[in-house]
Amino acid sequence: MNTRPIGVFDSGLGGLTILKTLSKALPKEKLIYFGDTVNVPYGSKSKAAVTRFSLDIARFMQRQGVKLIVVACNTASALALAELQKKISVPVIGVILPGAMKAAQCTRNGKVAIIATEATVQSKAYPRALKRLDKRIRTYQRACPVFVPLIEEGWIHHSAGEQIISDYLDGVVKSGADTVILGCTHYPVIKKKIAARLGKNVKLVDSAEVLAQEVKTRLSQTDQLNPSGRGSMKIYASDAPARFKRLAKNILGRELNRVYLKKLN
Amino acid sequence: MNTRPIGVFDSGLGGLTILKTLSKALPKEKLIYFGDTVNVPYGSKSKAAVTRFSLDIARFMQRQGVKLIVVACNTASALALAELQKKISVPVIGVILPGAMKAAQCTRNGKVAIIATEATVQSKAYPRALKRLDKRIRTYQRACPVFVPLIEEGWIHHSAGEQIISDYLDGVVKSGADTVILGCTHYPVIKKKIAARLGKNVKLVDSAEVLAQEVKTRLSQTDQLNPSGRGSMKIYASDAPARFKRLAKNILGRELNRVYLKKLN
Repeated sequence: MNTRPIGVFDSGLGGLTILKTLSKALPKEKLIYFGDTVNVPYGSKSKAAVTRFSLDIARFMQRQGVKLIVVACNTASALALAELQKKISVPVIGVILPGAMKAAQCTRNGKVAIIATEATVQSKAYPRALKRLDKRIRTYQRACPVFVPLIEEGWIHHSAGEQIISDYLDGVVKSGADTVILGCTHYPVIKKKIAARLGKNVKLVDSAEVLAQEVKTRLSQTDQLNPSGRGSMKIYASDAPARFKRLAKNILGRELNRVYLKKLN
Repeated sequence: MNTRPIGVFDSGLGGLTILKTLSKALPKEKLIYFGDTVNVPYGSKSKAAVTRFSLDIARFMQRQGVKLIVVACNTASALALAELQKKISVPVIGVILPGAMKAAQCTRNGKVAIIATEATVQSKAYPRALKRLDKRIRTYQRACPVFVPLIEEGWIHHSAGEQIISDYLDGVVKSGADTVILGCTHYPVIKKKIAARLGKNVKLVDSAEVLAQEVKTRLSQTDQLNPSGRGSMKIYASDAPARFKRLAKNILGRELNRVYLKKLN
C-alpha cells in the first residue's frame, strides 16, 4: 500500500479529460493536477522548450511526494517523455503508447489516422509507436492547431466550429483509416462531432481509458495502490487560476472547487 | 543624431504589423524585433506573468543598446507599460495611448468600441485612456480570443473564419459605435473583413500609423533620428524560429530572411 498522491500534468486544461477518467478508475487515490497555464500552449513550441517546462513540473510533483506521474498531454509525451523518465526517479507514464496500443488493437484494415497538435504530428511519436507495435500499420497524420482555442472558448458548438472540424477531417476521411487516434487531450471534448463527421465505421481512440488501466496495473503490480484512501483532487495552475477555473467547466462539464496558483520559476 | 537601433517587441507575430509600418515611416533606422514565442500568447495570461515577460525582453533590448522601445503588443501595453517605464532607462512607448488618441479624434457620436484580447479588455486600459482624453466618450469592449489563432493559422480566409468574425462583431454593431479600435496587433491583418461586417460608416483605428508618428516625433525632438542610416531589421524569437518565419508570411505578406533564436531565461 502507498498513500502518496498520483501526479497528473498538462500544458493547461486538456489533461482534465484524463484526470476525470483517472479519478473514476481510481476513486480512492489522491490526485494532484498541474496545468501549466503560464506556458500554454505546448503544441506550437519547440522540443527544448516543452522539455524544460515538463521537467520543472515533474520536479515540483516529486517535491509533493507523488508515487507516479502521468503526462496527460500528448505534446509533452511526444517530446519530453524520454527525458522525464531519465531524470525523474518515480515512474512517468505518457499518453502516446497507451493510445497507440489501443489503436493497434482496434484497426481491421491496418490504416490508422492521428489528429493532434502541430508539435505532436511533427515529432512522429504516434507513427513510430504504431510501427513498433505492428510494422504493417500505415498511418496518416493531420495537425489541427485551431481545435484547442475553439474548444477552450466554447466555439465548437457553433456552426463555424463544426465547419472547421469538418474541413480538418477531410484528409482523414480520404486516408481510408478505420481507426483515428484523438492525439490531443482536448479532443475528447468534441468526440461526438468528430464521430459524426467520420461515420460509424471509424473507431475513435482516446488514451484516457487505456492509460487509467495502465496506471492501475503499474501501481497494483508494485503494491502501491491506496485501497483505503478517501480520494481527493488538488488542482494547481502556473498562471491565472480564476480563468482556469472558469474554462475548466467547458472541459469537465462541472465547476472546480478551487485552483491553486503555483509559479515554478 | 543617434545611430542606435529602435527595439520593438510583441508576444509573437502580431507586432510585425507595427514593425512594417515603422520601417516605412522610418526607413533609415535600425530596427530590432523580438517575438516572445516561448511565452505566446499573452492575451490569456495574468498581469504578473505578462509584466515579467515584458521586463525580460526590455532588458535584453537595453543590452542591445536600443535608444527607444516600442511595445508592439496591446496586452503588454495594457498590463506592463507603467512598470516598464519605471524600470527601463530608455523611453518606452506602448500602443494603447496612440490608438486611443486617434479614436478620440475620429469619433463623431462619442461612441467607441474596442475589440481586443481577453487580458486587454479586462485591464480596461482603452476605456480609461479614452475617458482621460474626453470624458464624454462612451465605450464598448469585446474580447475576441479566437481571432489570433485563426489569423496565425490562415483560417480567416475560410467561410467559417468569416462567420466567427461576424458573430464576434454583433455586439459592436449593436453598440452604435462609429469608431472601432483594433486593439490587438494581429487584427489589422483582417481589417478588410472587419470593415465589411461593420459597414462603411464605421471608422477602424489601428495604432500603427499614429504610433509610428509618435516614435518619429519623440526621436526628432531629442535629435535622435538616424537620417544617414541604411535601415535594417533584425528579428529574434524566443522559441521555434523556423515556425515564426513560416507564419510571419501570413502577417507580413512576404518571407523574412532570417529569424534568430534568443532564449531569455
